[in-house]
Amino acid sequence: MPRVGIIMGSDSDLPVMKEAGDILSQFQVDYEMTVCSAHRLPEETARYASQAQQRGIQVIIAGAGGAAHLPGVIAAYTVLPVIGVPMKTNSLGGVDSLYSIVQMPRGIPVATVAINGAANAGLLAVQILALQDETLHQALLAYRRKMADEVRTKDQRLKEKGAEGYLREKEEQ
Amino acid sequence: MPRVGIIMGSDSDLPVMKEAGDILSQFQVDYEMTVCSAHRLPEETARYASQAQQRGIQVIIAGAGGAAHLPGVIAAYTVLPVIGVPMKTNSLGGVDSLYSIVQMPRGIPVATVAINGAANAGLLAVQILALQDETLHQALLAYRRKMADEVRTKDQRLKEKGAEGYLREKEEQ
Amino acid sequence: MPRVGIIMGSDSDLPVMKEAGDILSQFQVDYEMTVCSAHRLPEETARYASQAQQRGIQVIIAGAGGAAHLPGVIAAYTVLPVIGVPMKTNSLGGVDSLYSIVQMPRGIPVATVAINGAANAGLLAVQILALQDETLHQALLAYRRKMADEVRTKDQRLKEKGAEGYLREKEEQ
Amino acid sequence: MPRVGIIMGSDSDLPVMKEAGDILSQFQVDYEMTVCSAHRLPEETARYASQAQQRGIQVIIAGAGGAAHLPGVIAAYTVLPVIGVPMKTNSLGGVDSLYSIVQMPRGIPVATVAINGAANAGLLAVQILALQDETLHQALLAYRRKMADEVRTKDQRLKEKGAEGYLREKEEQ
Amino acid sequence: MPRVGIIMGSDSDLPVMKEAGDILSQFQVDYEMTVCSAHRLPEETARYASQAQQRGIQVIIAGAGGAAHLPGVIAAYTVLPVIGVPMKTNSLGGVDSLYSIVQMPRGIPVATVAINGAANAGLLAVQILALQDETLHQALLAYRRKMADEVRTKDQRLKEKGAEGYLREKEEQ
Amino acid sequence: MPRVGIIMGSDSDLPVMKEAGDILSQFQVDYEMTVCSAHRLPEETARYASQAQQRGIQVIIAGAGGAAHLPGVIAAYTVLPVIGVPMKTNSLGGVDSLYSIVQMPRGIPVATVAINGAANAGLLAVQILALQDETLHQALLAYRRKMADEVRTKDQRLKEKGAEGYLREKEEQ
Amino acid sequence: MPRVGIIMGSDSDLPVMKEAGDILSQFQVDYEMTVCSAHRLPEETARYASQAQQRGIQVIIAGAGGAAHLPGVIAAYTVLPVIGVPMKTNSLGGVDSLYSIVQMPRGIPVATVAINGAANAGLLAVQILALQDETLHQALLAYRRKMADEVRTKDQRLKEKGAEGYLREKEEQ
Amino acid sequence: MPRVGIIMGSDSDLPVMKEAGDILSQFQVDYEMTVCSAHRLPEETARYASQAQQRGIQVIIAGAGGAAHLPGVIAAYTVLPVIGVPMKTNSLGGVDSLYSIVQMPRGIPVATVAINGAANAGLLAVQILALQDETLHQALLAYRRKMADEVRTKDQRLKEKGAEGYLREKEEQ
Repeated sequence: MPRVGIIMGSDSDLPVMKEAGDILSQFQVDYEMTVCSAHRLPEETARYASQAQQRGIQVIIAGAGGAAHLPGVIAAYTVLPVIGVPMKTNSLGGVDSLYSIVQMPRGIPVATVAINGAANAGLLAVQILALQDETLHQALLAYRRKMADEVRTKDQRLKEKGAEGYLREKEEQ
Repeated sequence: MPRVGIIMGSDSDLPVMKEAGDILSQFQVDYEMTVCSAHRLPEETARYASQAQQRGIQVIIAGAGGAAHLPGVIAAYTVLPVIGVPMKTNSLGGVDSLYSIVQMPRGIPVATVAINGAANAGLLAVQILALQDETLHQALLAYRRKMADEVRTKDQRLKEKGAEGYLREKEEQ
Repeated sequence: MPRVGIIMGSDSDLPVMKEAGDILSQFQVDYEMTVCSAHRLPEETARYASQAQQRGIQVIIAGAGGAAHLPGVIAAYTVLPVIGVPMKTNSLGGVDSLYSIVQMPRGIPVATVAINGAANAGLLAVQILALQDETLHQALLAYRRKMADEVRTKDQRLKEKGAEGYLREKEEQ
Repeated sequence: MPRVGIIMGSDSDLPVMKEAGDILSQFQVDYEMTVCSAHRLPEETARYASQAQQRGIQVIIAGAGGAAHLPGVIAAYTVLPVIGVPMKTNSLGGVDSLYSIVQMPRGIPVATVAINGAANAGLLAVQILALQDETLHQALLAYRRKMADEVRTKDQRLKEKGAEGYLREKEEQ
Repeated sequence: MPRVGIIMGSDSDLPVMKEAGDILSQFQVDYEMTVCSAHRLPEETARYASQAQQRGIQVIIAGAGGAAHLPGVIAAYTVLPVIGVPMKTNSLGGVDSLYSIVQMPRGIPVATVAINGAANAGLLAVQILALQDETLHQALLAYRRKMADEVRTKDQRLKEKGAEGYLREKEEQ
Repeated sequence: MPRVGIIMGSDSDLPVMKEAGDILSQFQVDYEMTVCSAHRLPEETARYASQAQQRGIQVIIAGAGGAAHLPGVIAAYTVLPVIGVPMKTNSLGGVDSLYSIVQMPRGIPVATVAINGAANAGLLAVQILALQDETLHQALLAYRRKMADEVRTKDQRLKEKGAEGYLREKEEQ
Repeated sequence: MPRVGIIMGSDSDLPVMKEAGDILSQFQVDYEMTVCSAHRLPEETARYASQAQQRGIQVIIAGAGGAAHLPGVIAAYTVLPVIGVPMKTNSLGGVDSLYSIVQMPRGIPVATVAINGAANAGLLAVQILALQDETLHQALLAYRRKMADEVRTKDQRLKEKGAEGYLREKEEQ
Repeated sequence: MPRVGIIMGSDSDLPVMKEAGDILSQFQVDYEMTVCSAHRLPEETARYASQAQQRGIQVIIAGAGGAAHLPGVIAAYTVLPVIGVPMKTNSLGGVDSLYSIVQMPRGIPVATVAINGAANAGLLAVQILALQDETLHQALLAYRRKMADEVRTKDQRLKEKGAEGYLREKEEQ
């Protein structure tokens, strides 16, 4: 039974939103993925949000671009935490998506992450679930250590190879 | 029976949205005014939009600020023309409201007017209704002539009094 | 006899503005297309707008970029509803076009759609015409149902194939 | 023992950040409030974040303005969910605070709410805690109903009094 | 016979546009002032621009705010140099006016000055006229010297009084 | 003897600034082109501006990008009209260049054209020179007529071929 | 003999720029203050910058607003470190000043601080001078400790009084 | 022993940050390069900054993108001058990085250079070191002369070849 629902306004958001799913898989958190436009399928969107909790969903990750209403509309129909992912847009770089998601009025919050920041949306969901799941908490600590080690490794290689050597090596990969 | 529905996300939008109503009154177009938040009353909002047409509404004017979803959510539930009025906001001057309203995805348009441009929303509604109402059409032409005359009068007074005289006179009023 | 006039400031806007025409064709609404710059052909622009109504035009869709005056200039010469389409620009992403079109002064509204949102301009025109044309109204409802079905189909395929399968399939097309 | 830590970069943020506390009080969620600058007290900030969890804190709400590093710095030292509140700024309206908080790099999310949106930060914290606390969950549902009722009451009064009557009455209060 | 035409879209622009006139008076350049909206009086605007040259006007200064079309529309009807003054706006600070004036398409330039920069518009007009008027040229050089002397005087006073003394003195004036 | 000086801050601006020269050539206005950075060659820049008038220059066109000081610095050293061309920049699209050029303080105007609008800078220079040169004036009128005809031709072809035919033909060229 | 030169484009910048001087006084660093516009007094500005070093100046702090060229022009005439302070502006909030100062081309850096950040400009100057002055270095460490203590005191008072008590007390002061 | 520390938040910043190193090499200033994320390795970042001075570092150059906290976090742990380099970002062009770095609160300055301006960060470091190193000072003067000569050479070549010839030659290289 999925604990996280990932929902996006269009299948063109999938390459970005997939990163949220990949993070959840990495943490072995069951999730489901849905394409459901707040504008083209408003009733389904409302139903999805209203029924999420009773279906066992604990966190919803919603991605949308432009006049990005999906996260806010979802949040209007549920008291589950809703994480909003603003999609980068062609014309305005995603600042339209960001404002449409983050500037929610008093009463209905959306937890907004960076433009195209679906991976962090996944991590935030894990951090929320980890409050009641010690295994996840340990996995998060391990994930942080691994991230830290990766930076350390890069730093060491940069110091060994120098900037030019490092860049050459990277290019060859 | 009202032909135009004016709806706003919060009663703090009323001083601006009232200007739309004032224009409609001036043209003797019957309208109704509703406070109904897309986020705090999502079901009522959906119902309002779904039933507007059968209640005789022909144009909906929707004003909202910040992550301004109301016009787009209304538009998702009806094929009536929806006019969106972005509210000026304290922090971002209304550019957040503007982007949230105008950048609608393909399929669900919102006819957006200027930030705080409720009077123009009213006029646009009249222009749409006038397509099937010759009286309104004549009233619009008269309104334009009156606007033109007002500018002409101001210009004449400026030429008579000079800039300083004009400004002094204006201040005294 | 065309009921909608599509006008654009430059033939470089044609690939975008054509989408408005395609929508109108889809709804079997007769339209005409004109290239006519507010700056290079001001008199023709004025004549076009002044005479549109008597030629049977009911809605005008005007697209322009940068200091995008065409929609507003057209609106100054007619009381027909004018829909403005801000073109994406190379330097500023179209925010210049958007501000030049949407921020109209009191008295002369332009119904603004998204940057490069010509398809929605076409739909908005159909929604306006549908107020007096039951066939169009039914066609709009059918269009909405079709859009909804397309999203449902995508959602179903995503659920069958998973994100990776879906993206692979899409790429292959 | 406090379950939510509210932290702010400067005591000038207190009038806004207090709203987060007021929401938590309303939900009878125990919290603590701290002034601790990421730049002027970096070690204390690090210690605060590192030790929060073992002190029983489950969610951290961090508010900051300008180059607003506090939420991100806190998030770097803990895997607890961190909610960031961008403060409105004099020069840039808070867009500097917003970008500094929301645009976090992959790996370290901050759940960002609206500019000056401390009340929503409080609600988001409650929504997160409610996942493991049925009383809170019920309280959230009640809170939503109350918000809905308030809008309904306003709408009714607007319909009874008309726009002018409503505004006059509001002014008199 | 006026050599410079100052035109503005609304009498609310007069307090700013008056500064252009004041500069011209200071240089004893004859000018006229006109209120004439590109949107409310399009024909008069066209006529004004078309006939300016034969009436002896050599430079036109046009100020407008929001979707500020006046300078561009004027420029479309004349080959006289047109100087555009973007008005500060309440919601967007004048960036809308600036983009609407400066981003003119190839073929029809508008010489744009700073937001609310009407005084500089006046000076630019004088600089253009001075190309064929040695008296004006000498007056410009004198004006520059006077400006320079004023800064020198301020600098000297600052050095004598110190920052605090200088500010106290200024306040007392 | 050149009547217009075109100056640019870097030879990377040449492809854009060349368009100003091309316009001037088309109008048979003699010009010179100079690369001279306000920051790397401040003394030469000052000398260039101070001596321009006595060398017969009547209008200076200055292009620069980023913190684009060249036009303003030139304007500080001469009372000739200075036309500023903001260069498009990689990171900010040229809004940095635009603000650095157009927002000049009271006393020292720069006549600013669109981002990358060097062709219009050339035309503006011609319009200024035409005030004292009837041949140029006639050439400008002819240029306008030619521009108008080009749009008319495009419009006619669009009407003959339809949008698809037009675009196909254009592509083939 | 002053070691730091504070220069500003206009005496209207003095209330802000004075904060740089106050910081320097606090650290007993001798400084001088100059009003000298890059545009109205270009030669003096050039002379000031060219001669600063031989007059014993080691760091220059330059503040300016709008098309804020002063810091960059100063930097063009000296290899001393130049610190730029972007002034807040009425129309654009200082983003024009910021871009005009920070976006310097390769070769001529300006060390830019926050909008209206003159106090930090003073501190940055002290940090640079402290590299060769152990007394200053110790003073900086003490200053940091004092800042830290002030935050600690505020935090303690907040914890004692609670948010409401704290705010009431602050108001009374 | 390195006198300048170059630090960056991610190895993706290396191609830009390398330019700072290249400048330092050119001036024979010893430097070290470090990859160390403020968010993924907060303790190491703190340690790096705290110990920099005792390790002989005199200036730190820190580059980061998005919510770019690294320069400010470094600055919080040291009184050495910290130069911040905002990285260009995909979505927002680097304005997010710029605001996150330059808008530091009172007390902790970061000397900010242009977006992607790492070369200038290197030069600024040299200018700071040159205050106590006459060899560096002479090298800076020579560097400026060389830059000036390069512009002069380009100008001469442009004058010889004309714009077209110049561009053709450049292309062929």
